[in-house]
Amino acid sequence: MLALPGSPREAPPFAPATLAQQRERFVQELGELVRFPSISADPKRAPVMQACADWLRRHLQRLGAADARVLHAGGKPAVFGTIRGPRAAPRVLIYGHYDVQPAEPSGAWRSPPFEPSLRQGALFGRGASDDKGQLFAHLKAVELLKQQRSGLPVSVSFFIDGEEEIGSPSLPQLFRQLAPELGHDAAVVSDAPIVAADRPSITHTLRGDLYLELRVRGAGRDVHSGLFGGAVENAVTALSDALSRLHHADGSIAVPDFYADVPEVSARERAYMRRVGPAEHDVQRDAGGARLSGESGYSAYERATIRPSLEISGLQGGYVGTGVKGVIPSTASAKLDIRLVPGQDLDRVAKVVTRHLARLLPPSLRLEVRELMRIRPVALDRGHPTMQAAVRAYTRAFGTPPVFLRTGGSIAAVSALSDGLGVPVVLMGFALPDDAPHAPNEHFRLSMLEKGIQTSAAFLQEMAR
Amino acid sequence: MLALPGSPREAPPFAPATLAQQRERFVQELGELVRFPSISADPKRAPVMQACADWLRRHLQRLGAADARVLHAGGKPAVFGTIRGPRAAPRVLIYGHYDVQPAEPSGAWRSPPFEPSLRQGALFGRGASDDKGQLFAHLKAVELLKQQRSGLPVSVSFFIDGEEEIGSPSLPQLFRQLAPELGHDAAVVSDAPIVAADRPSITHTLRGDLYLELRVRGAGRDVHSGLFGGAVENAVTALSDALSRLHHADGSIAVPDFYADVPEVSARERAYMRRVGPAEHDVQRDAGGARLSGESGYSAYERATIRPSLEISGLQGGYVGTGVKGVIPSTASAKLDIRLVPGQDLDRVAKVVTRHLARLLPPSLRLEVRELMRIRPVALDRGHPTMQAAVRAYTRAFGTPPVFLRTGGSIAAVSALSDGLGVPVVLMGFALPDDAPHAPNEHFRLSMLEKGIQTSAAFLQEMAR
Repeated sequence: MLALPGSPREAPPFAPATLAQQRERFVQELGELVRFPSISADPKRAPVMQACADWLRRHLQRLGAADARVLHAGGKPAVFGTIRGPRAAPRVLIYGHYDVQPAEPSGAWRSPPFEPSLRQGALFGRGASDDKGQLFAHLKAVELLKQQRSGLPVSVSFFIDGEEEIGSPSLPQLFRQLAPELGHDAAVVSDAPIVAADRPSITHTLRGDLYLELRVRGAGRDVHSGLFGGAVENAVTALSDALSRLHHADGSIAVPDFYADVPEVSARERAYMRRVGPAEHDVQRDAGGARLSGESGYSAYERATIRPSLEISGLQGGYVGTGVKGVIPSTASAKLDIRLVPGQDLDRVAKVVTRHLARLLPPSLRLEVRELMRIRPVALDRGHPTMQAAVRAYTRAFGTPPVFLRTGGSIAAVSALSDGLGVPVVLMGFALPDDAPHAPNEHFRLSMLEKGIQTSAAFLQEMAR
Repeated sequence: MLALPGSPREAPPFAPATLAQQRERFVQELGELVRFPSISADPKRAPVMQACADWLRRHLQRLGAADARVLHAGGKPAVFGTIRGPRAAPRVLIYGHYDVQPAEPSGAWRSPPFEPSLRQGALFGRGASDDKGQLFAHLKAVELLKQQRSGLPVSVSFFIDGEEEIGSPSLPQLFRQLAPELGHDAAVVSDAPIVAADRPSITHTLRGDLYLELRVRGAGRDVHSGLFGGAVENAVTALSDALSRLHHADGSIAVPDFYADVPEVSARERAYMRRVGPAEHDVQRDAGGARLSGESGYSAYERATIRPSLEISGLQGGYVGTGVKGVIPSTASAKLDIRLVPGQDLDRVAKVVTRHLARLLPPSLRLEVRELMRIRPVALDRGHPTMQAAVRAYTRAFGTPPVFLRTGGSIAAVSALSDGLGVPVVLMGFALPDDAPHAPNEHFRLSMLEKGIQTSAAFLQEMAR
């Protein structure tokens, strides 16, 4: 139940001056965290991942998590620690991740991706928004609550993933290791955008992700394109031909049976989405001015959330170095990023896509498909009391109630927590749509860091009631 | 006129023992030459190019070219030097090149590309066949002729290019620099295959080469494939779609007007090609077992010689590093290697291909086309006395007369010499079709080195008559 306007519960937890006083230190600390090039996709970064995890472990210890530790389960390390609240108080698990996307194309950054730079009220750097900055808001919320006379109202555990950007393959095993310490009353997953700085929102659906790497290999080897040009098979041409047949001209996906288990979203729900969600020009602006395109009959927001997508995230074949090499390539490779909506079955989609590709390619080319990542789609219950506590928290922090949003992104932890562990999950994000996550010049606004601290602290207070 | 069988002119110039005695030294010297990673496409190799050119200059000086020197015209250095024969004797210009193709994919080499390795009677290494080994045969022919009592029967100039693999852009300027020393009676261009070790051949047509680099760039930047997947334009998908429409399903080129100036080759000529040229299984074997494909109605040999081709030699876009990056690429690039037959106009073809690509791509993508190389197609006169001298030379060296072959490859020097300088040109090559030029595990057979020495020396003798 929302309190009446003017009651103490309506105010944000901290006076604005409290946050302003500490702003410089916050920026310095977050800068330290962003400085780690903790790219989980890059096997060469193992020492950096460990160093970044250690930094977070020490940070949790300073917040009072006596048990803070770095966890290993074969992949990149994760960090776990609990800051205890009053005995018998509810227990909240906050999930964030310290791993980041690769910084390519490095040349497109105005300041180097791993040298955090403060400009125009935002901290620029890979991971500043996704997810180091958002995670940091929760850390600081706990720190500031502990500094208050009333103290931390609930017990808070942090689970900080090092593999979110690669699909969190170690998460199930890490959760099994931690089983005796889990069993929280609620989980906060902090890795999501809100509509706009003055329009808070709570994400309630996530698309799943099936990330496939394709390699095709012809019977021969690379050959001279003068001596053999026009006479032998070109693997790049063949792969390019096959990829060009994955979509219909109208932008819909041409793989047979791909849409078989995609549910129709109700007209009422679509009307709500139109009312609260981003308009066409919002999506275009957030995508850096890219041309909108895709399946007809749906808005850009709908195409990115209630419809599945199949994107070529990478394609390579033949000579791509400087200048000229006259060659007919015998191999080529591509990365396909397929996003699935709640209701779609990952195994089935993997099967129909692989089967279709095999049909499109000439039999002389050997096709190898490797699944690099799989994340299940998620739809969370908007009416759950934990969700309603989050609604009140956003309302207090932003001075206006949040709307419910859908996102096209995928977070492995959400399904692992809600479906796997049965914990009510709230997606509590503070990213703005134009933060440029996964893109050059990623950044996080300091105003959103402060709103995030207020929201997180308010949520912990609401959970204690 | 061919001499009667049994006459001295029918014998190869050197006794087999003469060559056998020196084999070890030849391999050691050629190994030194192959060891230079003289990749002209790679701007970082400038010091290596200079070192390799210096090695060749010293080699020419040791052969007696007092004027041997390294030439510069803004690009990679070339080497020039003349070994004088008897006063008033004919003057022969021998063209070869010391630059090589990139060694990628490096992992596919059984021995490192720039560590020459002698196996199964062949020297393995990048450039061993194309063109260092073939050039070396001519150098050794001159050396051995000079060691004979009769001496070198003609004056021989060597022009050794450092830019053949990138289209010899400096050649016109270098030839202008050398103008006072040119005016040769014949030119030998030594960079061509023969049909088989026991079936010598003289190449009389070359395809031209138009090498284009395409870059497409969308209005935005790379964006998150979860948040925007299905909603915005993907530059890789768009480029891949456009490239897939460059060929018809039957393998012919789908660019309008592309074939407008391709001449029909006569039935008689095609019958000759069938009789003397490589059969389907020969082409397939030479291409390392690749599947034969391409325009219907023509044999593989015909498709690679009397028909133009358009190959995607390279394609790249999005994330191609290790593992996962969820991104919708806003840029993509490709390299198109277009081979043209005698009769086709390079400017016209560049225009129709660029226009077609611009039509296939959505207008939201900016297309940039850069021409990285252009070489004109060439058809040489099989009846010319110089060509007939080459016929006699091959007959003496191989014990069987050569056939006339067409090749799909392109050599800028041939048109620069024949059309530009008006010198009768003979293509005198010693490469075998399965030498794997431009491919991993390139090699050159020692038996062909020796046959090449005999042929070159015989040709110089024939030219003196």
